[in-house]
Amino acid sequence: MSRLDDYLSRQRQRVDAALAAVFPLDPEHPHRLVEAVRYSLLDGGKRLRPILALAACEAVGGDTEAVLPAACALEMIHAYSLIHDDLPAMDDDALRRGRPTTHIAFGEGLAILAGDALLTEAFALLAHYAARAPRPRRLLRAVAEIADAAGARGMIGGQAADLAAEGGPADLATVEFIHARKTGALLLACVRSGAHLGGADARALRGLTRYGECLGLAFQIADDVLDAEGMTAATGKVAGRDQARHKATFPAALGLPAAKARARELRDLALAALQRFPAAADPLRDIARFVVERAVGA
Amino acid sequence: MSRLDDYLSRQRQRVDAALAAVFPLDPEHPHRLVEAVRYSLLDGGKRLRPILALAACEAVGGDTEAVLPAACALEMIHAYSLIHDDLPAMDDDALRRGRPTTHIAFGEGLAILAGDALLTEAFALLAHYAARAPRPRRLLRAVAEIADAAGARGMIGGQAADLAAEGGPADLATVEFIHARKTGALLLACVRSGAHLGGADARALRGLTRYGECLGLAFQIADDVLDAEGMTAATGKVAGRDQARHKATFPAALGLPAAKARARELRDLALAALQRFPAAADPLRDIARFVVERAVGA
Repeated sequence: MSRLDDYLSRQRQRVDAALAAVFPLDPEHPHRLVEAVRYSLLDGGKRLRPILALAACEAVGGDTEAVLPAACALEMIHAYSLIHDDLPAMDDDALRRGRPTTHIAFGEGLAILAGDALLTEAFALLAHYAARAPRPRRLLRAVAEIADAAGARGMIGGQAADLAAEGGPADLATVEFIHARKTGALLLACVRSGAHLGGADARALRGLTRYGECLGLAFQIADDVLDAEGMTAATGKVAGRDQARHKATFPAALGLPAAKARARELRDLALAALQRFPAAADPLRDIARFVVERAVGA
Repeated sequence: MSRLDDYLSRQRQRVDAALAAVFPLDPEHPHRLVEAVRYSLLDGGKRLRPILALAACEAVGGDTEAVLPAACALEMIHAYSLIHDDLPAMDDDALRRGRPTTHIAFGEGLAILAGDALLTEAFALLAHYAARAPRPRRLLRAVAEIADAAGARGMIGGQAADLAAEGGPADLATVEFIHARKTGALLLACVRSGAHLGGADARALRGLTRYGECLGLAFQIADDVLDAEGMTAATGKVAGRDQARHKATFPAALGLPAAKARARELRDLALAALQRFPAAADPLRDIARFVVERAVGA
């Protein structure tokens, strides 16, 4: 097992245990709703977003225990966005991480509600934690950034632009606009909230922000490349769907070789942004390499 | 114009102005998404929920300026819930407040996203406000209560139970379970968050909690009665829909005369809960009378 595999596996276990505790199977909850939430949330995902928050905190020498609630909230927001994006009125996907999507398994109405519940409970978790925190201001700044990244100028705005662009010509400016918001904003918020909560100073925050921006874009290009090359197993989704629906993707806008080159370039920029960081930033470095290299090779 | 009409009209104007400022028409936002949000949010609603928060704050002698952000967030959460409840996979309603519902006007995908945006931005608004507040703890307690009321044990849990009950027999216990969560929890959170932010002591909070519980249930019975009696104009929805879909309602569970009597009884209990409150609680008293009497008479 590589150094990164070992790190990811340890952090994933922490996150999974914390997430399972957020939605216990409990007679007070209407049963099917909680089942749908747990089906979507506790599905063996990679937990990239919460792990980025934890790793960013470590990179600045912070205590990751203080980041765990925000890390869980970030994964819950991600999980809600997947449920809603998969709905028939959106991307109409039947398969996610190799399993039927939530609306296929539980029906559309309950899938919409499960997404709503994950989003709402993410903020409930943060509010309860902040209300108990001895000095809540640092956390509140992180919460505001997370909410902005998830909101109308961030993830939801990106998904709306994606819906609007479907079927049209995919020029590079449109693709970058969509992806910076649809996936980039939340990934950046993961890194920055981990940094905030770890007590990053202004200089460290600048480096981690640059890292997060490059990583977010690289991640999306890699995902587009995997889809275009038909790697259903690697993505857990039905491959080739983007092209079939004329989705705005980097390979469609740039061609596959240029898209791959751009992903490698962004990986290098992400690594350069961490140049002055100590060995505690190695997990972030490993993640940047992994995200790109699983799709485009070294 | 009655005393209550005058009060509601003044408070509605404050709330409407604050809400319009949350979603400006701005080139940074993807245009259609903001249009869909504004269509749903700025539609001449009664603003009962934010006004309850403001009135509860006044009832304990607090400064309502400090409640306005929470009041806006409460209305945004309400607006999101209406958009999602109206979707074809949920209640499948075509008309709301006398106009086409959001998915009819903007399509289903954008309606789902507009709801998501309203919910997310409600918490963004609260987080930004709390991050700037000199002593954020009181606000954080209110935010946690609002999130819980909107979440899986509150509003969303109620809607899930409502979906599950549709078509089955409507016994009173089921109807009360659904309505206490689906509409009651958020109405109670409006009253309690206004009270918290107004600086209510434990005794005042107890009285206002009792008021909010009774008002929430009375409001739902009144709404059910209006639907059963076919008052499309008063509700702005297509009347008789509940019965046609065998929805779990109070008139279906109790019969119409007993449902009306229960609404009047709850109004009286709400008024009794405010017995020790000064004249500053008159708007809350007037609201309890109005909510019941518009549906069942005095």
